[in-house]
Amino acid sequence: MKVIGVIPGKKESAHIIDVDKPEISSSEVRVKVLRVGICGTDHEIDQGLYGEAPEGEDFLILGHESLGIVEETGRDVKGFEKGDMVVSTVRRPCPENCLNCRSGENDMCLTGNFKERGIKSLHGFMAEYYKEIPEYLVKIPEELSDVGVLLEPLSIVEKAIMQTFKIQERMKWKPKTALVLGAGPIGLLATFVLRDMGINTYTLALDSIDSKKARLVMESGASYIDSTKEPIPELGEKLGNIDFILEATGSSTVSFQAMDILGINGVLALTGITGGDKKLEVDADRLNLSLVLGNKLIFGSVNANITYFRKGVKHMQNFEVKWPGLLSKLISRKVVFEDFKEALLRKKDDIKVIIEIGK
Amino acid sequence: MKVIGVIPGKKESAHIIDVDKPEISSSEVRVKVLRVGICGTDHEIDQGLYGEAPEGEDFLILGHESLGIVEETGRDVKGFEKGDMVVSTVRRPCPENCLNCRSGENDMCLTGNFKERGIKSLHGFMAEYYKEIPEYLVKIPEELSDVGVLLEPLSIVEKAIMQTFKIQERMKWKPKTALVLGAGPIGLLATFVLRDMGINTYTLALDSIDSKKARLVMESGASYIDSTKEPIPELGEKLGNIDFILEATGSSTVSFQAMDILGINGVLALTGITGGDKKLEVDADRLNLSLVLGNKLIFGSVNANITYFRKGVKHMQNFEVKWPGLLSKLISRKVVFEDFKEALLRKKDDIKVIIEIGK
Repeated sequence: MKVIGVIPGKKESAHIIDVDKPEISSSEVRVKVLRVGICGTDHEIDQGLYGEAPEGEDFLILGHESLGIVEETGRDVKGFEKGDMVVSTVRRPCPENCLNCRSGENDMCLTGNFKERGIKSLHGFMAEYYKEIPEYLVKIPEELSDVGVLLEPLSIVEKAIMQTFKIQERMKWKPKTALVLGAGPIGLLATFVLRDMGINTYTLALDSIDSKKARLVMESGASYIDSTKEPIPELGEKLGNIDFILEATGSSTVSFQAMDILGINGVLALTGITGGDKKLEVDADRLNLSLVLGNKLIFGSVNANITYFRKGVKHMQNFEVKWPGLLSKLISRKVVFEDFKEALLRKKDDIKVIIEIGK
Repeated sequence: MKVIGVIPGKKESAHIIDVDKPEISSSEVRVKVLRVGICGTDHEIDQGLYGEAPEGEDFLILGHESLGIVEETGRDVKGFEKGDMVVSTVRRPCPENCLNCRSGENDMCLTGNFKERGIKSLHGFMAEYYKEIPEYLVKIPEELSDVGVLLEPLSIVEKAIMQTFKIQERMKWKPKTALVLGAGPIGLLATFVLRDMGINTYTLALDSIDSKKARLVMESGASYIDSTKEPIPELGEKLGNIDFILEATGSSTVSFQAMDILGINGVLALTGITGGDKKLEVDADRLNLSLVLGNKLIFGSVNANITYFRKGVKHMQNFEVKWPGLLSKLISRKVVFEDFKEALLRKKDDIKVIIEIGK
């Protein structure tokens, strides 16, 4: 079968490789891949900045955002059968099987020695087929066939938001106002989740108010803010007490600006991967004082375990009822398998680019 | 009766004033004050940097850390009687009676219009008597008569630590290593609470290893770190994964250093009041990335509601059993009422200074 592999550390090394179709054991499932989404991490791996091949191999099959169909199940597999539509989670436990990994919270792995399909020491899903054990597969209802490939990025959002609500059980908390920083896939999906929860949501990005991203934001009932016209430092006053901020621009400048406008008892969830070495001058005394006197909280959130994938499926179903077709508009470009290099290019107006692999 | 009042905004204005002994209504309790502790906020108020007189008055009775004895109860008062030893909480609800204030979590007041006895718009406890309603009074067992005056600072610690454990219910969390930054009253009390919980605790301050503070730390079974010999940035490597850091030095430089050494899934609780305008250059990209990839969390904690005072009483009882007499060593200087100006001076080797008011 054909797969898209990279040589980790080598720039723009992605190429099609022929490998054997995976054989499954009695406890495994073979999945035929329908499509795969591209995210920032894939770009970084393609640029040679990130990524690790499985032990003993010299290439890594790319791809961690997938949608597929069960083609065959081992005889001991329960709960899945041929024809089921599925998404696979990404992270796998560390060899030490730390406290968090052994309780299914491998997104909270304590050792850092976890593996991740398509990213770190395990092959990904840019392949005609992959195999997996059932505990890492999530069933996708038929009606979500067009958008199920968005479940992995949605799981990132679900984790950040579910963690926030869990954290805030430390007090009475009824968030009224949320601010989402960034309108890429993570920012838009966060906007939809917050709107589905009935929270007054503002989503900010660099695009103009008549851009496609702005329209998608507004279709969900959120307000769009063009940050070139209304800079972040001014929003504290404009929006009142900001109960929740989700940072999804990937800029640490934005993260620090967000800390400054966070409201009393507020939570700032950071999700952006800032791989650079930017330094900033920070009003340290003032920021520290405001965090303390306002009982404010900042946390970082990465990856997602299967709980968040399952929660994402429910939200997707809600989205389709409330805003039919809105979710599918995040898929801004579809590329056939052979043209995968096109998919790895960043183009203007891209939101989510997917590679069509099977049918 | 005699009280110690300040003219808010005026430097070193503390003076003894004669006022009427408070009359109580049927629902109130009159408390005879035994002693009052001095903290950084009192110093700031005495320096004219902070503090607000009650509406319509030109002075503020100082003092928010108290221990007293019930002298008289209104006829409708239940649960308290003459002779009971009590500590009063400090904060009172905002006039808007916000979501948090009306549920008894006035430490989480959303409007910022709360009042605080001895600090903001309500008289404090540097007085021969005060009156209060029972819902803000905490009973102190007889055996804690020497140390009960430390309950208010302990309540600050209880809040920061209980909030941390509540927050961490977001995952499986078994903290092994805690770092306390600062060995003033908050730092020492935090050390004792963490040790009472069986957590491997390191407490850091500027004093040498043979100082009194270092001895108090070590008597509770914690390790003492002289930060002039082992700077904070080196501790990340030395201590392994730091699960919890409590910042109690009041330096925002220390807060930012702490963010850098916090372990995976770790929590940094900030309690220091940093009233200056210090600016710092921060490795913004690296810090943001480390928070995200490590699922790390930072929060500020201020004040404490009665739940935390009650928890503090239990911890004090544990301390007395585990380390008899240790807690009382925090009281480094006792001053009689008339010499209150002595109490407001900061002296070398001060930990907690108290003013003896009644008997």
